[in-house]
Amino acid sequence: MINLFIDDTIAAIATAPGEGGIGIIRISGPKSLEVAEEIFFSMSGKKISEYPARTLIFGNIKDGDKKIDEVLVAYMKGPNSYTAEDVIEINCHGGFISVKRILELVLSKDVRLAEAGEFTKRAFLNGRIDLSQAEAVIDVINAKTDKAHEVAENQLDGSLSNRIREFREKVTELLAQVEVAIDYPEEDIEFIAYTTLEEKTRELNKDIKKLYETSESGKIFREGLKTVIVGKPNVGKSSLLNSILGENRAIVTDIPGTTRDVIEEFVNIKGIPLKIVDTAGIRETDDVVEKIGVEKSMASFDTADLIIMVVDSSSELSEEDREILEKVQGKETILLLNKTDLPQVIDEEEVKKYVNEENIIKISALHNEGIEDVHDRIEAMVYKGDIKSSSNVIITNSRHKDALYRAMKSAEDAMRAIEDRMPLDFVEVDLKNIWDYLGYINGDTVSEDLLDNIFHNFCIGK
Amino acid sequence: MINLFIDDTIAAIATAPGEGGIGIIRISGPKSLEVAEEIFFSMSGKKISEYPARTLIFGNIKDGDKKIDEVLVAYMKGPNSYTAEDVIEINCHGGFISVKRILELVLSKDVRLAEAGEFTKRAFLNGRIDLSQAEAVIDVINAKTDKAHEVAENQLDGSLSNRIREFREKVTELLAQVEVAIDYPEEDIEFIAYTTLEEKTRELNKDIKKLYETSESGKIFREGLKTVIVGKPNVGKSSLLNSILGENRAIVTDIPGTTRDVIEEFVNIKGIPLKIVDTAGIRETDDVVEKIGVEKSMASFDTADLIIMVVDSSSELSEEDREILEKVQGKETILLLNKTDLPQVIDEEEVKKYVNEENIIKISALHNEGIEDVHDRIEAMVYKGDIKSSSNVIITNSRHKDALYRAMKSAEDAMRAIEDRMPLDFVEVDLKNIWDYLGYINGDTVSEDLLDNIFHNFCIGK
Repeated sequence: MINLFIDDTIAAIATAPGEGGIGIIRISGPKSLEVAEEIFFSMSGKKISEYPARTLIFGNIKDGDKKIDEVLVAYMKGPNSYTAEDVIEINCHGGFISVKRILELVLSKDVRLAEAGEFTKRAFLNGRIDLSQAEAVIDVINAKTDKAHEVAENQLDGSLSNRIREFREKVTELLAQVEVAIDYPEEDIEFIAYTTLEEKTRELNKDIKKLYETSESGKIFREGLKTVIVGKPNVGKSSLLNSILGENRAIVTDIPGTTRDVIEEFVNIKGIPLKIVDTAGIRETDDVVEKIGVEKSMASFDTADLIIMVVDSSSELSEEDREILEKVQGKETILLLNKTDLPQVIDEEEVKKYVNEENIIKISALHNEGIEDVHDRIEAMVYKGDIKSSSNVIITNSRHKDALYRAMKSAEDAMRAIEDRMPLDFVEVDLKNIWDYLGYINGDTVSEDLLDNIFHNFCIGK
Repeated sequence: MINLFIDDTIAAIATAPGEGGIGIIRISGPKSLEVAEEIFFSMSGKKISEYPARTLIFGNIKDGDKKIDEVLVAYMKGPNSYTAEDVIEINCHGGFISVKRILELVLSKDVRLAEAGEFTKRAFLNGRIDLSQAEAVIDVINAKTDKAHEVAENQLDGSLSNRIREFREKVTELLAQVEVAIDYPEEDIEFIAYTTLEEKTRELNKDIKKLYETSESGKIFREGLKTVIVGKPNVGKSSLLNSILGENRAIVTDIPGTTRDVIEEFVNIKGIPLKIVDTAGIRETDDVVEKIGVEKSMASFDTADLIIMVVDSSSELSEEDREILEKVQGKETILLLNKTDLPQVIDEEEVKKYVNEENIIKISALHNEGIEDVHDRIEAMVYKGDIKSSSNVIITNSRHKDALYRAMKSAEDAMRAIEDRMPLDFVEVDLKNIWDYLGYINGDTVSEDLLDNIFHNFCIGK
């Protein structure tokens, strides 16, 4: 556990930028109340400290004599607050200027602008939540579908933390046994040690592996399934997109810090966030192949989790089709034979050479037929195992996945060491590694650099 | 005053859409508390009604057994709330899904989605604020500069309402005098009536006119100064834009409901929000003339409040320059002679034929020279009169401007009727018209259609 002494007061706008009814400025740290008392004047004439904590108080924010905005202010005394520090929240009018002017006023009072994720980081450093819960906060905010949101909420509730704690308790037990055996190196104790260790380590390894395996689908919930839609011109990509996007369009997000040309579109397919890559191309979708060429398409193929290729089933496979089919081989590809409303001309046997039969679906994008089959197929490809119905603890974060992988590998090392009856000191090292790697997840064993790195991905104000 | 019986409960997301730490769902109406008690479960196990009103209560929103999100809930009992009705505010995690899921849950409980501006409309209908204050709410939210924000805050505080009330009180006094004179048609009373009426009506007319005249600058604060930057390729429009935008870029807003191609950029020049029109063109600014042609430029000239034309002073005026100069004549134009870092070749006398000398400014966009002069000039053009330093009541809303114009014209009619010693019944009609038109502004005399129209321009959730 890192112990940083936090003695400064931070502030930031806590609501999304843009037009809205309400904007919130959040202040956290020892000077929160003092600063708020300086700039806030309640309609009743009473001070904030004269009200019970957590009361929404109506009044004005003033810079000297100049009124800035009508607001509601609440004081949440630590540790009963988001950061576990003294927190002030100022609810003002939405839009850009009210929040900006109030924040500027607050920052002129020996308060500094919070870094990205710093409120949540403080909640972690002050021990209110563990690291996997802190990371869940940004996943809750960034969730693109209800399912992704549920998974993040579970993690926020501590479901992953609890699981990791269970694992670590088991490791601690194993370590205790190893240490007893090392301290009392009698043969029968050692024999019992190896036998029970072997069984329990195998069990632990199985449990870790099972959790690790949820990460394949889990990552998709968090980051979206990167999907590229390809096909030569006039095969019906536009109609397909309209069919899919029409009802299921989830969210269009501007990515902060980039140009507005980089926009991600998420489509919600049965709770799975499909991230349609190369939106610019999709908007003029019938030109994709012509415009960016097969070379460029290849680049997007490489980063794609899923390729949806559309061909016109009412005509024969063309050289262009074949060229694309060659390129997508070996990738997760769904091949759509479009235009079932017209007589079929395409040679199905030929396309089966390129794409797995179960991934070939006949549709009529124009008549909206077969689209449901596409959704089902995507769902089946994502939920390969039994993840959907099983545990509610799903690994969505690649950092957690990585830590679990290392823990799993260390458990395998431990297994081998035990099976080979290596000296118990060797086993102890492996077990300690498991313990450490698991600790990365809940933040027990984590460096300051890593923390900075994690919270850097948060938005400011959280 | 319209009396609508409001008995339903409404809800909406009150924060801007997008990534942010906190999102708020607001519920208003008689069922607010009941609905909140159904879906909110405090950590303490107590009900919302067991807490003092206006307390932020920590707990979970649940749909049956399913937890949706960790939230803070506050109950504001009417009339001490934004709408003067019972209001519940649910502060949840930001992002898209938390607010969406909670709103959906609320709407499943006999609550309907609020229309745009409906919370503020209810605040007006319930008599908490008058119409000009209600309209100020959206101006506060939409303000693009601190100055625009201040003006809107003043209006929200009732500065305009008070002024209109003063005017109307004067009209009421005049009407009383007219009525006395009509009721007692003796010659000397009538004589006194005409004399005092003449003086007081002239005074009133002067006051209304003075307020009306603030609208010319006022509109700019509210809507921005529509600015078009023109010039043939390679005269330095890009550099100029970088100089101006670089430090002063205020806000980039997506306009909801339109494609992302329609983006408005506001630049804050000395508190004046410059709305750069035709952003798409500006991004590839050096192609503007070539691409859209003089014909298309003309269209944007017509709607522009200000045209900034750039020419290259290091070369002679070209035919293209002259063509544009012809077109901008008669418009508010600032002509920038760019590239003062190079020897001047352009014939200054010639350009003075097209553009007013005081509006011709030499700059070096590349070396950031002369830019401050451009800012000063824009400021001078906007604050033509003494508005800047004078009254803090400024008419920013074209609806108010229109109502004031009609009130002013009715006052002039009254003046003429009095001067011509027309029968007092005539004067009475004119005075009543003034009273009615002024009543449009604070909402005393306003139709339901107009109300719908006004609040329709609000965002949902306000």
